[in-house]
Amino acid sequence: MGTITIIGAGAMGTAMAWPAADNGHTVNLVGTHLDDAIIDSIKENGLHPKLKRAVPKNVNPFKHTDLSEALKNSDLVISGVSSLGVDWIAETAGPLLDPAIPFIAVTKGLMSRSNGEIITLPVYLSDRIQQIANKQVRINAITGPCIAQELAARRHTCVVFCGENVGTLEKIRSMLQISYYQVATSLDITSLEVCAAMKNAYAVAINLAVGEFEVAGVDGNANYYNPQAALFAQGMREMELLIEILGGNPKSVIGLPGSGDLYVTVFGGRSARLGKLLGRGIPYQQALQDLAGETLESVEIARQVIRALPALEKAGRIPLNSFPLLRHLSNLIETNNPAPIPWEKFFSS
Amino acid sequence: MGTITIIGAGAMGTAMAWPAADNGHTVNLVGTHLDDAIIDSIKENGLHPKLKRAVPKNVNPFKHTDLSEALKNSDLVISGVSSLGVDWIAETAGPLLDPAIPFIAVTKGLMSRSNGEIITLPVYLSDRIQQIANKQVRINAITGPCIAQELAARRHTCVVFCGENVGTLEKIRSMLQISYYQVATSLDITSLEVCAAMKNAYAVAINLAVGEFEVAGVDGNANYYNPQAALFAQGMREMELLIEILGGNPKSVIGLPGSGDLYVTVFGGRSARLGKLLGRGIPYQQALQDLAGETLESVEIARQVIRALPALEKAGRIPLNSFPLLRHLSNLIETNNPAPIPWEKFFSS
Repeated sequence: MGTITIIGAGAMGTAMAWPAADNGHTVNLVGTHLDDAIIDSIKENGLHPKLKRAVPKNVNPFKHTDLSEALKNSDLVISGVSSLGVDWIAETAGPLLDPAIPFIAVTKGLMSRSNGEIITLPVYLSDRIQQIANKQVRINAITGPCIAQELAARRHTCVVFCGENVGTLEKIRSMLQISYYQVATSLDITSLEVCAAMKNAYAVAINLAVGEFEVAGVDGNANYYNPQAALFAQGMREMELLIEILGGNPKSVIGLPGSGDLYVTVFGGRSARLGKLLGRGIPYQQALQDLAGETLESVEIARQVIRALPALEKAGRIPLNSFPLLRHLSNLIETNNPAPIPWEKFFSS
Repeated sequence: MGTITIIGAGAMGTAMAWPAADNGHTVNLVGTHLDDAIIDSIKENGLHPKLKRAVPKNVNPFKHTDLSEALKNSDLVISGVSSLGVDWIAETAGPLLDPAIPFIAVTKGLMSRSNGEIITLPVYLSDRIQQIANKQVRINAITGPCIAQELAARRHTCVVFCGENVGTLEKIRSMLQISYYQVATSLDITSLEVCAAMKNAYAVAINLAVGEFEVAGVDGNANYYNPQAALFAQGMREMELLIEILGGNPKSVIGLPGSGDLYVTVFGGRSARLGKLLGRGIPYQQALQDLAGETLESVEIARQVIRALPALEKAGRIPLNSFPLLRHLSNLIETNNPAPIPWEKFFSS
């Protein structure tokens, strides 16, 4: 059995300690500069304050100042920070990483450059580490439907590890797979990262229908699943299109990181709450206040992709007026004006 | 404005009266031999007892004995019966249908022949009418996420009309589309019928996880979405494979009739209730008793496809041990023995 170091002690990073520890490994859990209170709590009584659960016994908590110590003799490094912490990881951990040790990130996202080029976070992170530390660390990533709280409760979870090298992926799988944590592998990083990133934005969009329902009120025993389902399918179609544009395999959207992860994201968390508020006709800035203190990764990701659309259109790489649902979401966010869902623009094939 | 005749006054058939009537058409709603009480209720006070809602004003109720009268001067015929009533439709309405009048069915399903050939219900219905009445009636079909109760409440609903002729599909769309009922069209009947049929079976399967959760009980604030999402994605993959085998376009599973319809079916109705009971470890025969009086279309469809698998395997058209989730469902049903979900068989690519 080996040593696995997890960087980032938020809910998702910490949840990875369960399959790691249950596989018999020693787990070093290192907080970021924002996680001191979490690490203090674990040191004091073993409890993770956000997961509201004791971490497994073979987990050693470290503060960010002890990152170098924690990384010593690691057989696997897991990045558990969100996309908003990716620069922190590059700057702080980058210089300390050994390229020979497998690295896998739960971090999901897309970034766009001003020329319309969209890149995945693994590519971004790898490039940043190269710039900062002049070394090439290959970034593998975990995609698929995985709510941290449920993984920590050992609920059955199926995910996909993606990366550039089959052997590395198999090695990481062998260290983490266990009855309740089933792992598939894939080399199609682009597709899986598009799904992983965009499902957040579309989970906001699907919840617009829930918010509309809350305002419209009960009508007999009619619920509001038809509209949600239509938005779900439209989101799937737009993810398919984006994958196609970026050169991935569009059929990837059918599996765990696409349909599965979108399904799981609809039901909870920040994206769902934002969508409901916007669906109730609350202007974006006010909705933000209602969600005070919450990280809105989904909004940042939507913005990154929207920002790339004009250049892609100009280059003839996407049809005019494609991505009507993503554009609607963008309008709600950028203009701060509520607007009805543009149903007539969907499925016009 | 024309006359639209709906055959079958169950929830789904009757719900079609809303977009039909709101488009200004006269609607003849004809009950089957099982719908006399419904038609009596509508004649007496306008109320549909199952929808618990008054039907629109321009709806004329007819009993099955007046089918011939109701079909006179129709510009469009809609079959609203379930797959279990498809023979009744062929025998009763078949001889009365004018092949020149467009016909569209909400009926969904797959049938298998003993040689492993799987056919869609539109093909089956068309063949039956040919046999019985010696005429060729082209069967168009409505697929996509549409809960009857919600359509009758004018909730936003997006569907796909599929058939063999673009002109006919456009004509039917022009008669039924309205702000809250958006219609796309497709010639890919095979794919859409596979989705329409199989989503019932996979909705049962996804709810196995919900049933397991009900038994396992609360664990902190961990819900049970990871397992549901994994089953959702596995169902999507198996629908994709079945479409491929039957010669349709596997990407159809990405849109409304695949991901959208599966999403909507997970949350309610007979399939969901059966899945939860089986997931709680209740043997199938006992679960059936608990659902007394409910039509189990989903089970019949699963059986039709399962029945076809050995011949397809023998012919080398599907890999051995493909469809692990469908097979698990079949085992629960045929052996009457509860069994855990075979997580390790999924996503083993």
